[in-house]
Amino acid sequence: MTAALNSSTKRALDLGPAVELISKEEGHRQPLAPEFVSAEDFSPLEVAYDFGRIRREDIEAGPNNIWRYKKLLPVPSNVEEIPNTEPGCTRLVKADRLAKALGVKNLWVKDDTGNPTHSFKDRVVAVALAAAREFGFDTLACPSTGNLANAVAAAAARAGWQSVVLIPSSLERAKVLTTAVYDGNLIAVDGNYDDVNRLATQLAAENETWAFVNVNVRPYYSEGSKTLAFEVAEQLGWRLPEQIVVPIASGSQLTKVDKGFREFGQLGLVEETPYKVFGAQATGCSPVSTAFRNGHDVVQPVKPDTIARSLAIGNPADGPYVLDTVGRTGGAIEDVSDEEVVEGIRLLARTEGIFTETAGGVTVATAKKLIETGKLDPEAETVLLITGDGLKTLDAIEGRVGPKATVPPSADAVRKALES
Amino acid sequence: MTAALNSSTKRALDLGPAVELISKEEGHRQPLAPEFVSAEDFSPLEVAYDFGRIRREDIEAGPNNIWRYKKLLPVPSNVEEIPNTEPGCTRLVKADRLAKALGVKNLWVKDDTGNPTHSFKDRVVAVALAAAREFGFDTLACPSTGNLANAVAAAAARAGWQSVVLIPSSLERAKVLTTAVYDGNLIAVDGNYDDVNRLATQLAAENETWAFVNVNVRPYYSEGSKTLAFEVAEQLGWRLPEQIVVPIASGSQLTKVDKGFREFGQLGLVEETPYKVFGAQATGCSPVSTAFRNGHDVVQPVKPDTIARSLAIGNPADGPYVLDTVGRTGGAIEDVSDEEVVEGIRLLARTEGIFTETAGGVTVATAKKLIETGKLDPEAETVLLITGDGLKTLDAIEGRVGPKATVPPSADAVRKALES
Repeated sequence: MTAALNSSTKRALDLGPAVELISKEEGHRQPLAPEFVSAEDFSPLEVAYDFGRIRREDIEAGPNNIWRYKKLLPVPSNVEEIPNTEPGCTRLVKADRLAKALGVKNLWVKDDTGNPTHSFKDRVVAVALAAAREFGFDTLACPSTGNLANAVAAAAARAGWQSVVLIPSSLERAKVLTTAVYDGNLIAVDGNYDDVNRLATQLAAENETWAFVNVNVRPYYSEGSKTLAFEVAEQLGWRLPEQIVVPIASGSQLTKVDKGFREFGQLGLVEETPYKVFGAQATGCSPVSTAFRNGHDVVQPVKPDTIARSLAIGNPADGPYVLDTVGRTGGAIEDVSDEEVVEGIRLLARTEGIFTETAGGVTVATAKKLIETGKLDPEAETVLLITGDGLKTLDAIEGRVGPKATVPPSADAVRKALES
Repeated sequence: MTAALNSSTKRALDLGPAVELISKEEGHRQPLAPEFVSAEDFSPLEVAYDFGRIRREDIEAGPNNIWRYKKLLPVPSNVEEIPNTEPGCTRLVKADRLAKALGVKNLWVKDDTGNPTHSFKDRVVAVALAAAREFGFDTLACPSTGNLANAVAAAAARAGWQSVVLIPSSLERAKVLTTAVYDGNLIAVDGNYDDVNRLATQLAAENETWAFVNVNVRPYYSEGSKTLAFEVAEQLGWRLPEQIVVPIASGSQLTKVDKGFREFGQLGLVEETPYKVFGAQATGCSPVSTAFRNGHDVVQPVKPDTIARSLAIGNPADGPYVLDTVGRTGGAIEDVSDEEVVEGIRLLARTEGIFTETAGGVTVATAKKLIETGKLDPEAETVLLITGDGLKTLDAIEGRVGPKATVPPSADAVRKALES
């Protein structure tokens, strides 16, 4: 129990519907606290709720961001009044041209590039910030190589908090700039991402006033991904899709999307219609896909080697739970080559005008493969989660796309270039 | 009258509430057509409407994008059913930390980086596409150096149209990539932006099936900017702010924001409370600010030299109308140095977690200057329009921001770096 927690418990802790933490393996219960592993069974801790009654009308009357779902999240009752980044309510695009290209009937793209720092990480960080404030923290921290660094630095700036963002010193200049501009404590660490991650876990244990969003407040943070499922269901007109394709990094997002659909069903907000959850990985980092293919229920760690760096977690914490979810819902997991990732990016851009980062290319290319191999039903309504922005991974298309022609400034020259 | 128009008039033209075009200077009226200059008085043509009755409830029941305002735009009645980019309904952020830094009481930031291609250009292009489709066009075109190129190429891809985007061949690689990825006809022209612009006007006159969004369908295109005003007023709870600061490129956006506020007032959607419109320019391209300072009602063209390239229009078409609007509402126009632009970008990022492009830096820095010089009332409620994304102009902060320190992978080293 940290000093931060002790000081905050002088007033009543308000995390809305959240009542306890519960261990994932054996269901041990403990009070809400900034802790992430059960001391009883060493499994991850999850938030347990007492939801009460939640009606569609209450959600619809809420703000145009994730706080419309506050009664399903571990956040204070007045969360929308406290400065935060207000992510969510991004577009769900009816993707008829992509559907035609892929040979499916009914396809939607959830375009999460519209978030404040242009990835789904704004959702999880906003929930982490709201919960961390209740626990009495005043510094938001993370290890990251990109999207999470942007989201944490931006959210802390907006809240007037300190931030500590740890990155490998080899990170590309663009990702450094887009984090550093928020003027938090950006620390470059001489080492690879694994070194940075280990350092973060150590620092989280030693620094009682630092909320490491993906370490000590991870149970709260990860709940933010449920809002992707909530929005998809609400935007479809309060119903569940039949199939959804989700990229896998740690695997948390995929399990939380499933949790979101189940909660909506259990609360009677949607009919509990069956749905299948599909997972997408890059072949260069495909430990969960490999386990699925081999019928294993444990995940063998790998050393990542792929351009889809935002998915490059070689030892995914929620890998086994992903296998459970995909198995239970009747889905599948596939992986695609870097070449296919680039083709996925270009296909989505060409057909729907959405420019996604490499992770989105993985999702599109995997959907294509799942259709071609008959695992994804082309007749069933399908949603693809596009969770990040192409502007952050320009390297992936560098040298692949460019002007059709370079011409002198004459109308004739333009016409000739277009005819060629 | 073009062949495109002739073929489309075989069925009834549906541009919703739009009834005619009207010349800005002498009010000559003519039928709706893809034309932009009055043959009578050579002044720009604007859309004239017959709005009928519009209620708040109808707007609130509409989609979560600009088509909720379709009854105030020159677009078909079923516009939301036709593939388009669905921009709008971006965040209006209560900016208390920026307010404190600037010494004002009540400040809001309209963050338009959440649009599909991360600038306000998605709004105007979506309206241009919708209108152009009614006129029978099948190709969307523009001359551009950045945001407009992205928006046109993306919207055309989504609609399944051809696009022709003309850029100077010297354009930065990143801007080329983010347009080329949508796989339209991107043509690099050996010449500067003025050469490209002239070429576009010539091509628009010669190609009857090309809708140049900012040339032959400009009257429709420019109406899209009104949606910024509509959203601000609706998001404030159906009322007008007292002051608004708008960046000036061609000047169209500023005049249309004013038009949007006036239309909302005339239709009884908001109370017609007074408001002042302020204009922001970079000193390196400040023809309108210079005219305002000197009390002129014409604008002397300049040769742009500023890092705020998305505002670098040396001969702004709507300059005189900007002077009218600012004068009528009791606002002012100021300009700021490139150094101040960068400080403006950093101030907004540091206080509100919003990373804007150079144009947004111009707006923030100009607001600061207007407050310091007593032109903007610190007691009055103020809105800043942030119209584009920092990810597209990383050069502006290159060398200015970076990690606080680079350290070996040890907790001690991190702590020491933070204490220093």
